[in-house]
Amino acid sequence: MLKVLVLGSAAGGGSPQWNCNSHVSKLVRQGLDGTTPRTQSSIAVTSNNKEWFLFNASPDLGSQILKNKQMHPQKDLRHSPISGVVLTNGDVDHVAGLLTLRERQNLSVYAHKRVHSVLKENSIFNVLNPDYVDRREMSMNTNFELKNKDNVGSGIEVEAFEVPGKIALWLEDESKGENFGTQEGDTIGLKISSKDDGKFFFYIPACAEMTNDLADRISGSEMILFDGTLWKNDEMASSKVGEKTGQRMGHMNNSGENGSMHALKDLNIKNKIYIHINTTNPILIPNSDERKIVEENGWEVSYDGMEINL
Amino acid sequence: MLKVLVLGSAAGGGSPQWNCNSHVSKLVRQGLDGTTPRTQSSIAVTSNNKEWFLFNASPDLGSQILKNKQMHPQKDLRHSPISGVVLTNGDVDHVAGLLTLRERQNLSVYAHKRVHSVLKENSIFNVLNPDYVDRREMSMNTNFELKNKDNVGSGIEVEAFEVPGKIALWLEDESKGENFGTQEGDTIGLKISSKDDGKFFFYIPACAEMTNDLADRISGSEMILFDGTLWKNDEMASSKVGEKTGQRMGHMNNSGENGSMHALKDLNIKNKIYIHINTTNPILIPNSDERKIVEENGWEVSYDGMEINL
Repeated sequence: MLKVLVLGSAAGGGSPQWNCNSHVSKLVRQGLDGTTPRTQSSIAVTSNNKEWFLFNASPDLGSQILKNKQMHPQKDLRHSPISGVVLTNGDVDHVAGLLTLRERQNLSVYAHKRVHSVLKENSIFNVLNPDYVDRREMSMNTNFELKNKDNVGSGIEVEAFEVPGKIALWLEDESKGENFGTQEGDTIGLKISSKDDGKFFFYIPACAEMTNDLADRISGSEMILFDGTLWKNDEMASSKVGEKTGQRMGHMNNSGENGSMHALKDLNIKNKIYIHINTTNPILIPNSDERKIVEENGWEVSYDGMEINL
Repeated sequence: MLKVLVLGSAAGGGSPQWNCNSHVSKLVRQGLDGTTPRTQSSIAVTSNNKEWFLFNASPDLGSQILKNKQMHPQKDLRHSPISGVVLTNGDVDHVAGLLTLRERQNLSVYAHKRVHSVLKENSIFNVLNPDYVDRREMSMNTNFELKNKDNVGSGIEVEAFEVPGKIALWLEDESKGENFGTQEGDTIGLKISSKDDGKFFFYIPACAEMTNDLADRISGSEMILFDGTLWKNDEMASSKVGEKTGQRMGHMNNSGENGSMHALKDLNIKNKIYIHINTTNPILIPNSDERKIVEENGWEVSYDGMEINL
């Protein structure tokens, strides 16, 4: 079996965002229309209800751990049910939480070598003392079992694969043209399986485009947690909170001909769940037309604290 | 006038700490004995109830902004009452919150040149786009007015001064002997004044020793927020959650002959308030003997959300 706990369901900055006063952020601050605060994108997965792996470590990790009892220390004076972390890219909203995981705790941190190299270049991540924290390079397109610092298997298997995306914002290099220096491996998706019973799901919190390869890969699967950042490509501009399009940020829309609802419609995926949802996205409002549309298309909108058994 | 809002009253890791199961952390998680969660050390100060400066930016800044209405955007689609940040050292618990202050917001960030240089070496802080965020070097022992990005005065004046301390943990260099490469300016204290009426207080969240110079400086003042990390020097070891002493970490004890209660006893300071309190410190338990002792000695124990008018 696998159990998934959504620690954070929002995109970078969370919902509300600290300096955003747009419609959804305002509603969430006022607790109106059934909206609730959402922290930044991260899930935890366990195969035994005891040890958990985090998938991405958001800047909100401290409050996420406090809010979810499953993440509390269970025994001894220093303990955590968190065995390690798997990173899908180098975005601040996916790596800054590593800074919270200091204090002498054994951990294994899995990432693409591109991501490891930028963590290494940033000495602030030295708070993760190598006596306790083992940084492990993740090969692509290979199934392997996640292991804790002492190399004890977790019962969780992972296959990582590159997906269309974008280099992290803080690593963009404008001199490198319109893709800002993006390379293969800057954004990855994951197939996460139970070693025991073989059940699996996909976790793809950022994806710029549905390729044929990717569609083949996820087709027929039982569950997917997928990039739900924006309802439409120009949402930041039309909400007047920014200029960047979804494509510029490396994200597919939910709606439209080139959107994820359309792209996944005929892929025969049983449970489709949006995660990494930006605070501008109207699907965050339970009674909105857009929420109705995604639900009619067979999608759920994830929320902080959501538990899924597989 | 000055108004002080305590955003976070705990030392690094907060209380409870994520992987700590010692007495106080356990009580806080269970909500027992009047204990409450405390986030990591930071205060906000305003002279006009509209614009605020942060003093230190903790990893918990996202949740601190959400919890305190004074920090919410008040108008327009992008807005924040936060005009800037002043840093007292380069510790993760004082700088990681800068990563939360992304999203196109004008800010000025004041720090010692030592701290600016390590921020510059860590490219992850490039999320603070220089079009919006102005990094300003703070001279020591000079009174100056904090100004926002557009150089409009805040009505808050600051004088920074070096205090005995330690280089940030992630910058320690064991090859440099027992002080790990610590230099002047790695830890500073601040005198924070109202430009309007001249009232002032001291904010010294880390201090390894009370020197004669420092005692002279703070003597007779109306208020001090002072390093309350540990009750006693070997508290981490005796709580069995670590080995480091307070001295090793650059902090004075509250208690004892070399402690802050003793050192500040005869300095005629009207309001003495502990801040940056570690989760092992029994003064965090309202009904503890140690809390009684600090209160009998004229100290208050700060808490998240505490407001002080000066």
